[in-house]
Amino acid sequence: MSSIFPDLPEILVTLDSIDPRIAIVSLNRPPQRNAFTGEMKDSLVEAFGRLDRDDRVKVVVLKGEENPGRAFCAGADLSKGDFSSKGRYSEDGVPTMARHRDGGGQTSLAAFKIRKPTIAAINGHAIGIGITMTLGFDIRLAWEDAKIGFVFAQRGIVTEAASSFFLPKLIGHSKAMELFMTAKVIPAASPSLTQLFSSLHPSPEATVTAALSMAREIALNNSSISAALIKALVWRGASSPEGQHLLDSKAMFVSGNSRDSIEGVKAFREKRKPSFEATVPRDLPSELWPWWSEVDIVERSGGSKL
Amino acid sequence: MSSIFPDLPEILVTLDSIDPRIAIVSLNRPPQRNAFTGEMKDSLVEAFGRLDRDDRVKVVVLKGEENPGRAFCAGADLSKGDFSSKGRYSEDGVPTMARHRDGGGQTSLAAFKIRKPTIAAINGHAIGIGITMTLGFDIRLAWEDAKIGFVFAQRGIVTEAASSFFLPKLIGHSKAMELFMTAKVIPAASPSLTQLFSSLHPSPEATVTAALSMAREIALNNSSISAALIKALVWRGASSPEGQHLLDSKAMFVSGNSRDSIEGVKAFREKRKPSFEATVPRDLPSELWPWWSEVDIVERSGGSKL
Amino acid sequence: MSSIFPDLPEILVTLDSIDPRIAIVSLNRPPQRNAFTGEMKDSLVEAFGRLDRDDRVKVVVLKGEENPGRAFCAGADLSKGDFSSKGRYSEDGVPTMARHRDGGGQTSLAAFKIRKPTIAAINGHAIGIGITMTLGFDIRLAWEDAKIGFVFAQRGIVTEAASSFFLPKLIGHSKAMELFMTAKVIPAASPSLTQLFSSLHPSPEATVTAALSMAREIALNNSSISAALIKALVWRGASSPEGQHLLDSKAMFVSGNSRDSIEGVKAFREKRKPSFEATVPRDLPSELWPWWSEVDIVERSGGSKL
Repeated sequence: MSSIFPDLPEILVTLDSIDPRIAIVSLNRPPQRNAFTGEMKDSLVEAFGRLDRDDRVKVVVLKGEENPGRAFCAGADLSKGDFSSKGRYSEDGVPTMARHRDGGGQTSLAAFKIRKPTIAAINGHAIGIGITMTLGFDIRLAWEDAKIGFVFAQRGIVTEAASSFFLPKLIGHSKAMELFMTAKVIPAASPSLTQLFSSLHPSPEATVTAALSMAREIALNNSSISAALIKALVWRGASSPEGQHLLDSKAMFVSGNSRDSIEGVKAFREKRKPSFEATVPRDLPSELWPWWSEVDIVERSGGSKL
Repeated sequence: MSSIFPDLPEILVTLDSIDPRIAIVSLNRPPQRNAFTGEMKDSLVEAFGRLDRDDRVKVVVLKGEENPGRAFCAGADLSKGDFSSKGRYSEDGVPTMARHRDGGGQTSLAAFKIRKPTIAAINGHAIGIGITMTLGFDIRLAWEDAKIGFVFAQRGIVTEAASSFFLPKLIGHSKAMELFMTAKVIPAASPSLTQLFSSLHPSPEATVTAALSMAREIALNNSSISAALIKALVWRGASSPEGQHLLDSKAMFVSGNSRDSIEGVKAFREKRKPSFEATVPRDLPSELWPWWSEVDIVERSGGSKL
Repeated sequence: MSSIFPDLPEILVTLDSIDPRIAIVSLNRPPQRNAFTGEMKDSLVEAFGRLDRDDRVKVVVLKGEENPGRAFCAGADLSKGDFSSKGRYSEDGVPTMARHRDGGGQTSLAAFKIRKPTIAAINGHAIGIGITMTLGFDIRLAWEDAKIGFVFAQRGIVTEAASSFFLPKLIGHSKAMELFMTAKVIPAASPSLTQLFSSLHPSPEATVTAALSMAREIALNNSSISAALIKALVWRGASSPEGQHLLDSKAMFVSGNSRDSIEGVKAFREKRKPSFEATVPRDLPSELWPWWSEVDIVERSGGSKL
């Protein structure tokens, strides 16, 4: 199958044959067990941005291309180098701590910023960046025998991809610290990972099938504007329940008066599927969105640090 | 059974026949499967406020009146209208985003502000506001076959009742996002809900029985002042463990020197039940409480916004 | 076995016979079921500080000395007094709320501040401070029949040891509030505690064996600098994923260029165990660490509060 973004190497992007509002992004280096590279990072960041802005896309699914090693993503491709900075800053050749941007984090944040439901189908082993790149997704499904490893402490580096932010929030600090401190590789079905996955499946294929089935249900039944607002309410919310109440009062006012809500209630009364038409970003309420300040994370590879 | 607050329609408020320090609030629209209305909201907000201030009340339990539809609360009563604002602002007739206050949030925050242990006995299906109104409670028990649905995205609206604040904190962002993004209706016994309920029960009746049993244990054994302080320490705490240590050092000083603590230790040594006498709000330590600033959430339906 | 810190009463500190980079701290009042006292607090705070600074120590394990009562720690030793302040402030004899420092919190924070992996082997019943003193540890293992109780509300006091900060973060607010509000004593194997323990074991002895086995794996395979940085990223992180990305980009830059990372990648390629040499605190990157401001929690027992 050919990619709808043929200019982006090391990944494949296709549309679901049953519901073309679903975009499927596949990590595509099967001979290398889909190991992560700088090129793959660039492709994912660009693809996630395009899918976020594309009015025709309603749900995004991530998976690994199938391979004999049964890997979703084997981690950073260490045959290409190590984690040191030599030779990475080509403009003026001077790597500095202040300039460096973690490629894992660029990837996970690009996924996180998609204003649409996102589902990671972890249809194989996911090591290091292989698992942390999925933490910015809304939902994770996994093959029950997939090996999962937050192995950073065994490589002498840290938990990249903002995983030290995401994982404790996703599953609680107790299990997150256990996974990070032991750095052990364990099956997806391990009790330590129970809260991380929405469901486990008996094969890589069944995992992808379940993810697509879930994506189709969401595309068919759910309002895109609701999804975008809810996602932001969860992650960009207030620090007190009262503050959140003021915020979601505004979001309820705006969404409650929207055509999607009028249709949603009408469909419910008529006991039929709703036909939601609003799309992201065309119909996000400009009087409300965004209500938070974005932190600038742009990479500055040379010149003045200002 | 007649309500101790006969002026409040659509709910029943009674005292437990075994321990009258336990107040039982019942959603009371059985023919409508206890569906939520503006009147029910007003009654719940007023009732929760009265129970908070009533020295005789030590624990508050919420349940649904039993009905053939086996609903705890079927959600917002959509036979009464939709989520739009037309006709809602009677004073000057001008609804605005800034003035609007989400009724679900007014309800969940009124429950959240009760300075006493609160238990929700989810003795039937709980859809939309039916489940989110329970998120401000300290403890939730559920009938194992109760259908639970955070269905907002299927109605074109957002997760009201400050549920985007509460749910991720209660059960982690991973499961919360799954529930919000799929908007699916699932049994209380589903793995996705494991962390939300303290226990599951084979029938609606058994759920209420278990909730009352738990309430009686708490009323019999636990200090009201301890409960109020602990609840506030959890939800109104500091942003660092050191800040929390300074805060709970004060709370330990005040509670450790209180008559409840003297009695608690004495009873422990004498291997008997303690006889705690301090009540909320009479005995909350004014030198400490409240240590946080309240956010103003009062509804302003007309006139100057200042 | 004699303590390596013979000057510290009521605890035993030894080194693992198999891997002496593992320090084992034992609560040592078997006749009193290892009940907690002011002396034990002073010993633990001092021991944790020494182990944090000791370059030879890589992992810290806490356990209770075995006793017929099968207690890890039976809680505060109430035979010694109650929780009131009389006679506690010897310098000028004036206890005040502002001066008081919770001894439980001093203990849990001293453990929390160890910049190395820490494992609590809960090899017996853990009541009150017995369980809350373990909440600042990275990992908790428990004997499946250990009785666990957050009993504070039954003694008329509050959840000390910064447990109102730690427990909701560790296992979510839903289960934490249930445990705090009921104050019930339950077996470690109870569903309410599932997220708190990394594993359960059939006997007190098996619990300690498993904790030591885990400690040895960590000491053998993991970088000390990775562990210290990851622990701080989790607990001293930013309030947004973007802020965390900027922070862990710096940590990735520093760790990726470190000798531990060069060795970690080399060992991975050569399919052998890494030989990490960097130690805490000698090799923590001074250009990055600490990136947060410490809150002053020093006890002031008299004189000016400035």
